Amino acid sequence: MTDTTSPALQTALAYYQAWTSHDLDAAMSYIAEDIICDAPAGRLEGAEAYRDFMGRFVQILTGSTMIAAFGDDQTALIMYDTETVPVKSAPGAECLTVKHGKITYNRFVFDQAPFTTTRETPS
Amino acid sequence: MTDTTSPALQTALAYYQAWTSHDLDAAMSYIAEDIICDAPAGRLEGAEAYRDFMGRFVQILTGSTMIAAFGDDQTALIMYDTETVPVKSAPGAECLTVKHGKITYNRFVFDQAPFTTTRETPS
Repeated sequence: MTDTTSPALQTALAYYQAWTSHDLDAAMSYIAEDIICDAPAGRLEGAEAYRDFMGRFVQILTGSTMIAAFGDDQTALIMYDTETVPVKSAPGAECLTVKHGKITYNRFVFDQAPFTTTRETPS
Repeated sequence: MTDTTSPALQTALAYYQAWTSHDLDAAMSYIAEDIICDAPAGRLEGAEAYRDFMGRFVQILTGSTMIAAFGDDQTALIMYDTETVPVKSAPGAECLTVKHGKITYNRFVFDQAPFTTTRETPS
């Protein structure tokens, strides 16, 4: 299910491996300074905003499993499941544009609803 | 961004083309009787439940754009944006397992949050 002859996918998988190992510095080494990320909560612009966003997610991440990963020269498309402290199964999908080994654009899809419910329900 | 030499992707694209054209009968011709779909709201089992789920979505669908689509022999991974009556941009991703031209499994990711907000906000 993974075609590692795709340069974009190689970068995407290295990036995925890094953040799912809680290595935010390594993950950010694959992120372009001027990255744009269209995420459910809105658009993020620039590596600093992206690192802040990823950092908060990595803090609650307890596990992950790749579901499928494909790519070509400039585009990688991946879907994975994550396990987090508040939500046991929180799958996500990322469509990444990669240029010269750096991710310049991320269209990011996941369901915000269970995270919202968790925040609104006192434990 | 689409590799149409993949048999699974050919089925996935025909299915996508059908439901985004509001042709539910044609879309269902690609769905296995015993389909399982893991969606944000939970697991759907069987073609009847799947048709009901798709039918309600197709009713509010006003437009769609494919973002990326890849596949191999048995798996297709697609991401697209949809425009719906309540939510202007509602992207989704589907990881489809295809056997003998029929979709037997769909891991479906989208953000439920804006739809929930819409239901809770009187217009």
